[in-house]
Amino acid sequence: MSIHSVKRSQCHLAWDNSIPPVLTVESGSLVSVSCLDASNGQINSTSAVSAISSLVFSQLDQVNGPIYITSALPGDTLQIDVISIEPADWGWTGLIPGFGLLADDEEFKDPHLRIWKLDKERGVAVFDETKGIKVPLRPFAGEMGVAPGEKGAFSTIPPYKTGGNLDTKYLEAGATLFLPIEVEGALFSIGDGHAAQGDGEVCGTAIETPMEVTIRLTVRKDRPYTTTPHFYTSPKVKRISPTSDSNSGTDQLQAEEQYYGTTGVGPDPREAAREATRNMITYLNVQHGIDRVDAYMLCSVAGDLRMHEVVDMPNYVVGMMLPKSVFPSI
Amino acid sequence: MSIHSVKRSQCHLAWDNSIPPVLTVESGSLVSVSCLDASNGQINSTSAVSAISSLVFSQLDQVNGPIYITSALPGDTLQIDVISIEPADWGWTGLIPGFGLLADDEEFKDPHLRIWKLDKERGVAVFDETKGIKVPLRPFAGEMGVAPGEKGAFSTIPPYKTGGNLDTKYLEAGATLFLPIEVEGALFSIGDGHAAQGDGEVCGTAIETPMEVTIRLTVRKDRPYTTTPHFYTSPKVKRISPTSDSNSGTDQLQAEEQYYGTTGVGPDPREAAREATRNMITYLNVQHGIDRVDAYMLCSVAGDLRMHEVVDMPNYVVGMMLPKSVFPSI
Repeated sequence: MSIHSVKRSQCHLAWDNSIPPVLTVESGSLVSVSCLDASNGQINSTSAVSAISSLVFSQLDQVNGPIYITSALPGDTLQIDVISIEPADWGWTGLIPGFGLLADDEEFKDPHLRIWKLDKERGVAVFDETKGIKVPLRPFAGEMGVAPGEKGAFSTIPPYKTGGNLDTKYLEAGATLFLPIEVEGALFSIGDGHAAQGDGEVCGTAIETPMEVTIRLTVRKDRPYTTTPHFYTSPKVKRISPTSDSNSGTDQLQAEEQYYGTTGVGPDPREAAREATRNMITYLNVQHGIDRVDAYMLCSVAGDLRMHEVVDMPNYVVGMMLPKSVFPSI
Repeated sequence: MSIHSVKRSQCHLAWDNSIPPVLTVESGSLVSVSCLDASNGQINSTSAVSAISSLVFSQLDQVNGPIYITSALPGDTLQIDVISIEPADWGWTGLIPGFGLLADDEEFKDPHLRIWKLDKERGVAVFDETKGIKVPLRPFAGEMGVAPGEKGAFSTIPPYKTGGNLDTKYLEAGATLFLPIEVEGALFSIGDGHAAQGDGEVCGTAIETPMEVTIRLTVRKDRPYTTTPHFYTSPKVKRISPTSDSNSGTDQLQAEEQYYGTTGVGPDPREAAREATRNMITYLNVQHGIDRVDAYMLCSVAGDLRMHEVVDMPNYVVGMMLPKSVFPSI
């Protein structure tokens, strides 16, 4: 199968179903996309903090696409398999005034910029070599979304039920994302390369980086319960740095739990947690035949609520994640 | 060193600094505590759903203690090392009307009760044998707290900055909890055995079980930044059940990431997330000499916000968890 491609320049700055597609593909196609970082090239590997102060906000968080998938109809689900993600060899993290979970705190009101060297051979970005602080590289696309059914231009900064700036760190290579389709052709776009991020992205930015990403786009007609983003985490093992207790100087491989996740997306974190939980209950009920009360109890004793994104206002993303070791056929 | 003990009957039903201690120990002592389940014995392994309907709420969530630790003074920190937890061979999960994240949803307004058999040999509680759904047993104490400085009787149902009903699943054997001490002697109590629980405890109950727990209580004079509960997760490996992809019929051992966690406790989940983040920044700054802006960025790229408890109203517990693989000497 040939791989389609989308160039860096083929991007847009709003979710808007009137934007014409840059590519049309059949369901099941592979697409490689080249993406600038979320500053849209305003920050580079030699930037100083003045680059934060002079950011043009209207140019931020561009997404590449849209991609029209034939056979996609409103009510269908778009399955996005993340095949590979290659970050650049540098990245940045910034404190952008007015942005971030602690934006109101006096001590975090000034702009700051950290440029990272991404050591892809060791799989880490070094934070402090002397103290041994290293952040494992786990690249993913912060933005994956489809066009809204509603007419108009919607900012790419907040996430929506149709995806967008989900900033959900689990969407790395090997993961699968499901999004509800609201328009013919789905009109999928992607961007916002992150070399690493924690749940929450609390300071408002991750390790932001340009990336080359390859995805498979498949239209699913059998998932009517996908009303917000759902996902499988990657089943892969990860490389971890040696701990202080370890005598080994080499990285260790660690098997990682695989999860199925449902999300809630909205302006109130408690309501987002409720929506994520309801969506997991519905998934377990409709797809797996679990009684709804039993499903609620299973979420309570084995499912994890995590705050995936708390800074892309006005909308939070909260996930309910159930381990496959608990329910192998989930 | 001898092990002190606290009996099942030595319990109380409110956090109140006027309750006389049942035991006085020196810092560094081991104490074994025998605890009934959080229903205070109102539910047992043969109960039917009528036991939920007839629950006497004023008798719920008893905690065993208080234990007076000599040398503990207001402003100190109590370190609780969880040495071992032995659950009973049964547990229960209930839907209690008016309780739980979805308590307002019409479909979850009726009482329900599930009695679990805890298969300690296999390390699981079976949810559905046919579907292969099994919940790994990871027992912990839902309640660990010290007496408040403020006079009066405070319900044991919500968690506080001094601990209590934290319902934080990471506090299993091998974990360490730190609590801010507000009264002379600390007056520590423990209870609410959980055989398994996810982050959030969304339906309002975990797998509730009686337990025998052994802890070490140590007064720390060197942690003035512990203004809410902080913790280390256990460094131990865990046993996971085989997945459907596995040909092996036996459980697998999985190495698990170890974390340092700070928490925010309060009536607004966003504010709790902010408090947890600020507390991690302060910990990294005061204890490890990391610049506060750098610490905020490190939380963003490598720390995880998780909703540990969302049902013990009016207070939520949100954690900011930083992996030791990122910062080995954390």
